[in-house]
Amino acid sequence: MKKSAPMSKLNPNQIEAILDQLKCDRSGLVTVVVQDVANGEVLMVAHANPEALRRTLETGQMHFWSRSRRKLWLKGETSGHVQNLRELRIDCDGDVVLAKVEQVGGACHEGYRSCFFRRLEGGGWVVTAEKVFDPGKVY
Amino acid sequence: MKKSAPMSKLNPNQIEAILDQLKCDRSGLVTVVVQDVANGEVLMVAHANPEALRRTLETGQMHFWSRSRRKLWLKGETSGHVQNLRELRIDCDGDVVLAKVEQVGGACHEGYRSCFFRRLEGGGWVVTAEKVFDPGKVY
Repeated sequence: MKKSAPMSKLNPNQIEAILDQLKCDRSGLVTVVVQDVANGEVLMVAHANPEALRRTLETGQMHFWSRSRRKLWLKGETSGHVQNLRELRIDCDGDVVLAKVEQVGGACHEGYRSCFFRRLEGGGWVVTAEKVFDPGKVY
Repeated sequence: MKKSAPMSKLNPNQIEAILDQLKCDRSGLVTVVVQDVANGEVLMVAHANPEALRRTLETGQMHFWSRSRRKLWLKGETSGHVQNLRELRIDCDGDVVLAKVEQVGGACHEGYRSCFFRRLEGGGWVVTAEKVFDPGKVY
């Protein structure tokens, strides 16, 4: 059975010890791969600084660092399409984390469930998914 | 049924048109998420420049750009643990590609099938996988 229960509550000391294992890049960021806990679909890739991950662990909802807007960002703060954290993994180098989430609505700002809605087929990129929401109505 | 056949052969013009859709970062790289086509497990995250992706498309085996060694890198060139490309996707922003592969051996240089062999459990990072090879014998 898939793990789909919320992660257990962590105390502040535990959170700091967890964040200490991150190897942030020169910009102070790690890469975050977000995967649908229900079916393994990769939904999106974003970046986080330790503060974004701290808030993620405190609230159970994915927070990122927006490099273009230079601000902390609760995923779904505008759209309501939040990502509830169910499992967190870290890679061998400590510079990438893998978050398995329960996705509300769609992860992609273009209206798709996953940002990876284009597949290489017959020599070109082809859209293979249906939109799950209308971005014009959400943003 | 999972798509597990090799991808169809592309001609040079098709390959260049495909690469034209990439939005490389300031270092000329895109992020590559590698996923096991058989079970959806995320195996690793690496980087590629257009040349690495060109060779990937030409040979059907994953090539990356090593930022630390500053060179093109055929995954598995030392270990034999190659990744045969089965499906390629691109994200909405064009700066991340998702490669679904048939992994020979293990993807992680520490001997594990996946680089994400540590999971957050009970307040800390815990190794949850068994090694599939002995890195001391392979590298």
